[in-house]
Amino acid sequence: MTHKLLILSQEEKSYRALIEEARLANLELATQPADDVDIVLGEPSRIKSALPSLPAVSWAQSIWAGVEPLLDPASRRDYILTNARGVFGGLMSEYIFGYLLAHERRIFQRLEDQKNKRWDDSDTGTLRGKTIGLLGVGSIGADVARTAKFFGMNVRGYTWSSETSPHVDKYYHPKSPFSPREKAEDEGLISFATGLDYLVNILPNTKDTRKIINADLLNALPSHALVINVGRGPAVDESALLEALNQNKIAGTVLDVFEQEPLPKDHPFWTTPNLIITFHTAAPSLAQDIVKIFIENYKLFIEDKPLKYQVEFEKGY
Amino acid sequence: MTHKLLILSQEEKSYRALIEEARLANLELATQPADDVDIVLGEPSRIKSALPSLPAVSWAQSIWAGVEPLLDPASRRDYILTNARGVFGGLMSEYIFGYLLAHERRIFQRLEDQKNKRWDDSDTGTLRGKTIGLLGVGSIGADVARTAKFFGMNVRGYTWSSETSPHVDKYYHPKSPFSPREKAEDEGLISFATGLDYLVNILPNTKDTRKIINADLLNALPSHALVINVGRGPAVDESALLEALNQNKIAGTVLDVFEQEPLPKDHPFWTTPNLIITFHTAAPSLAQDIVKIFIENYKLFIEDKPLKYQVEFEKGY
Repeated sequence: MTHKLLILSQEEKSYRALIEEARLANLELATQPADDVDIVLGEPSRIKSALPSLPAVSWAQSIWAGVEPLLDPASRRDYILTNARGVFGGLMSEYIFGYLLAHERRIFQRLEDQKNKRWDDSDTGTLRGKTIGLLGVGSIGADVARTAKFFGMNVRGYTWSSETSPHVDKYYHPKSPFSPREKAEDEGLISFATGLDYLVNILPNTKDTRKIINADLLNALPSHALVINVGRGPAVDESALLEALNQNKIAGTVLDVFEQEPLPKDHPFWTTPNLIITFHTAAPSLAQDIVKIFIENYKLFIEDKPLKYQVEFEKGY
Repeated sequence: MTHKLLILSQEEKSYRALIEEARLANLELATQPADDVDIVLGEPSRIKSALPSLPAVSWAQSIWAGVEPLLDPASRRDYILTNARGVFGGLMSEYIFGYLLAHERRIFQRLEDQKNKRWDDSDTGTLRGKTIGLLGVGSIGADVARTAKFFGMNVRGYTWSSETSPHVDKYYHPKSPFSPREKAEDEGLISFATGLDYLVNILPNTKDTRKIINADLLNALPSHALVINVGRGPAVDESALLEALNQNKIAGTVLDVFEQEPLPKDHPFWTTPNLIITFHTAAPSLAQDIVKIFIENYKLFIEDKPLKYQVEFEKGY
């Protein structure tokens, strides 16, 4: 049986070249939506738009980890959805530790000193012995935990279920699995946050993770703590975060993701002191990484075996 | 037999408290130079000044790695000189990888984008697969090599002798051991430099390492290379480096050490584009680290055993 793949990505050319080079058995590449396309590879929003013109699709491979547009309950769910995993951990660790080291070793302050021709040879801090808390310990969180251990840090993990990373010193859980609705009373979350030097959110966007970084959590952090969000924007209660920063309840924040992206020009995040923003660029999907996942899954697909990295529509990850 | 220790450091109080706490056998702490002081602990320049008033000194423990002031051939050499080693590797790796990640992940550029309210979601680079070259692979270099491997980099080492780090993929050597005088013709050094993404100098200051980063070496680097000096200032030919930066022969430089420290206010390094300077702060001597070394050595000293980290006055390290 011949399969027909449609690529729906900004980087279509790169994906096409890499997939053609792999010479996969019984695979044709379509150039536009068609009745006989049964596989689609691309960005979730583009896949969502194309679904009505793809009646025969049975497998969609997202090139991103986040697949929100495809989780809309009004959307079709009569196909297997797989996302990209396992490739973002190293990139995410680079991003997080870039900013952790910049903070600890006062890289921005030193640059100001240089501009002012000020020789300040006072000692900086060190990551060694500091405590990092990870909201979410999936494959990305596990890589961040491994990197934190490499630098001699203490590692806490807050997770709904998995306790698989050997690099987490202590796990914390919501009171009631899968529905920590009363977050203000979530003692697990508060004791997780107490005494952290660094809080890093890596959680996917689900109803349980929305505004998990709220006033209660921020109040539980020490005033020297740095908060980093590389998960999804809705995890942060934006007004609570602004208040915490403006009142110096925390030392600083690094945000890569937002409720609305691109961040609107008039959003206060652009200019809030001690707030650094980047542009959903912490872990880019590199075509060579994603095509490896696609090829592996395609081989399973044609043998009717379970695909890797399947997303459960109900759970959202 | 009772020993008498004089502490000569800016951080005298911290050292005194930590050493008193250790309750070392037969050790008295002096408060000023005296005829019966036989051990001295402190900064090399302070030790040098005090030597004429310390006729009985038989062991000096430097709290720094670099001991240049004590290597002056006109100075006394009738005592055992030990320096601080083994404690700077982690701190130095933090510094180096802080700046490597800042460069690769465009941390400074992103900050400018934020100031200009520019949402630039283009992909950044990654350390994975890049090649780092270490000038000097002693205990600090070995830690930097280990960190580079952790981030998936290729590692080259240039060394006079030791090949002990398992994290160096390929070693390079001077043509003639211990005297690479004609550096322009040093093929080992040029092939070491060719194709590097990052060049890091960690060498001590000796006659063989002076101006090892000269025009020939800089010309051998790719134009996207970053040069970092955390060893000693004289390793860099300052005018050759300025020329390389001004002509964009290399992408950037991070310097922590200089021919003259503090760097004079009128030195062009303060304002050269793509040149970042810090203030001999890459690896601070933390009292709790150094006292551990002192205690270990004191126990060897009173048992007449060879001390750790002895400096050979002739070799300079």
